[in-house]
Amino acid sequence: MATTPGAPALPAMFARYRDRVEQELFRSVPDGEDTALYTLLRYHLGWVDQQGHPQVNALSRGKALRPTLCMFACEALEGDLSWALPTAAALELIHNFSLIHDDIQDQDLERRHQPTVWSIWGMPKALVAGNALQCVGDAALLNISRLDVGPDTALKVSRLLTESYMDMIQGQCLDLAFESSTTIGTQDYLDMIARKTGALIRTGAEIGASLATQDPAALAAFSRFGDSLGRAFQIRDDYLGIWGDEATTGKPAGNDIRRRKKSYPVVFGLEQAEGRSREDLLKLYSQDELDDEDVYRVQTILEETGAREHTQLLAETSAKEALAALDGISLPSWAEDEAEALVDFLARREY
Amino acid sequence: MATTPGAPALPAMFARYRDRVEQELFRSVPDGEDTALYTLLRYHLGWVDQQGHPQVNALSRGKALRPTLCMFACEALEGDLSWALPTAAALELIHNFSLIHDDIQDQDLERRHQPTVWSIWGMPKALVAGNALQCVGDAALLNISRLDVGPDTALKVSRLLTESYMDMIQGQCLDLAFESSTTIGTQDYLDMIARKTGALIRTGAEIGASLATQDPAALAAFSRFGDSLGRAFQIRDDYLGIWGDEATTGKPAGNDIRRRKKSYPVVFGLEQAEGRSREDLLKLYSQDELDDEDVYRVQTILEETGAREHTQLLAETSAKEALAALDGISLPSWAEDEAEALVDFLARREY
Repeated sequence: MATTPGAPALPAMFARYRDRVEQELFRSVPDGEDTALYTLLRYHLGWVDQQGHPQVNALSRGKALRPTLCMFACEALEGDLSWALPTAAALELIHNFSLIHDDIQDQDLERRHQPTVWSIWGMPKALVAGNALQCVGDAALLNISRLDVGPDTALKVSRLLTESYMDMIQGQCLDLAFESSTTIGTQDYLDMIARKTGALIRTGAEIGASLATQDPAALAAFSRFGDSLGRAFQIRDDYLGIWGDEATTGKPAGNDIRRRKKSYPVVFGLEQAEGRSREDLLKLYSQDELDDEDVYRVQTILEETGAREHTQLLAETSAKEALAALDGISLPSWAEDEAEALVDFLARREY
Repeated sequence: MATTPGAPALPAMFARYRDRVEQELFRSVPDGEDTALYTLLRYHLGWVDQQGHPQVNALSRGKALRPTLCMFACEALEGDLSWALPTAAALELIHNFSLIHDDIQDQDLERRHQPTVWSIWGMPKALVAGNALQCVGDAALLNISRLDVGPDTALKVSRLLTESYMDMIQGQCLDLAFESSTTIGTQDYLDMIARKTGALIRTGAEIGASLATQDPAALAAFSRFGDSLGRAFQIRDDYLGIWGDEATTGKPAGNDIRRRKKSYPVVFGLEQAEGRSREDLLKLYSQDELDDEDVYRVQTILEETGAREHTQLLAETSAKEALAALDGISLPSWAEDEAEALVDFLARREY
């Protein structure tokens, strides 16, 4: 699939916070004496190659959505951005810890255009590296207590992050349970991703906001904003996992189907398909391996059920709901414009 | 090996704290709605069987050394025991998280006389369960902020635990690196276990003490106490891994040799062995599998180098160092007696 004309570019806020967030991340995972461990982490984060030599390759770094959102929420509510930095870094580190472990679980060989940590260093080291990154994330968060936010706020932020992390893990657990079930409905799926992907994204917005204000209306608005935005992000991700362009996404086309992943379009398709189509879909998803023709057949069935249009529509509806969540509170006009650019990007991005 | 006459029994302090610690643990891992995940955790902790039905089987529960030590340090310094409970629970949960992941890494099929989590539920679910337990541990620690210890103390404890957890992971990483090296010396090995096993044990004593007093001499004494005690514990563990009795330890005799684990006696043996013995030892440890005869040959070489006596001597010397660390501070006589019983148990236990 070629890039859609008018596909949105990465909104300006990503570039605005990038340097400060990266500095904070660099401090958390220093090029120190324990190179054996830290090289794995720095490699996964896209900063160095397998030998630990610096590499400049923007493609192998993530978008840093969670930290960006945390910084944005704080700035939009006129908070002190330096207060949001420790949480921003912690969110990115914890998110990346979950990716290292996800790659082990799914036996994925590539992420962000490069070999995964476990595929290079083996499962045991990748497992420990993931745990180390989670721990580095916890430590990054504790830097907040060095600022003058006060110990109560520091503890509150710590509690929000721990709860969110637990929510993420419960979501991962539901996701694993879904793998062996064919009776998952779209609502089950949406509940699962609200935890697995949504928790850290929502928490980024919540913590960023709570470092700037104690106004309950503003906090609730940013929580709902993060929630809907997380759904828009994941549903568009699911779309790209089936209909995305390999060169842009860094993943083979139809990748999610080949891995028999029960992403939103497939759950929707299983709900909607009837007769022969439904039988085929169930049969194909019970095979050990799917060849190109099988993947094409699944794509065709999904198109027939309207899964493609429906999935994209859900991403865009969720994006609109995210914006609507901010309606009731007063934000500077630059922040309103940027929120709009952000949700539009997340719902229509090509990568 | 039969039980040595006079092998020490579990000291009384374990029984004294057990119920309160278990209550705190039960609260942390409730039999809740997310049974799919929590059953794995409760099973690993020895509370329920694979179906989630309660089982009373003391053998499948751990000794709870870390929480016991935390409670003891707090009580010996006349602190409020209820303050030590959240940390005690967190230490036990984080320790058990590392065991679930260790079993995945080492592909171990049994722990504490029952099948390991990954061997029942598969690697992906065990990986997530481990992460969940770590998170439950973090959450358990945050309960301390509900007590009147004050937010500064709560944050300090949180920082100590995070640092200790990172130390443990760095130790695991060194341990993995050692697996592929034949040039590890006994000092490298002692540095590694001071982190991998020692960190959480030392931190238990440190945090327990710091919840009772701010006296730097007492804090330093309990830190050194925990450090030496952790070494005594691990070195005796290494002894039992080679010369322990299967029925008592719950692990096959010679288990560590069969798994080609470079535990202390082996590292010592490799340093000391010469000529044919050294060649045999290196050759056997480079084989993919070891049969009973191979295990016996390794045991014989180790005995020849004096590894058996030397290992036990180191465990007992470390135990004495632990006691000596408390010499300079004033403790109630019951606490002195119990410290003595504890170090004696750790250095000479049969399980």
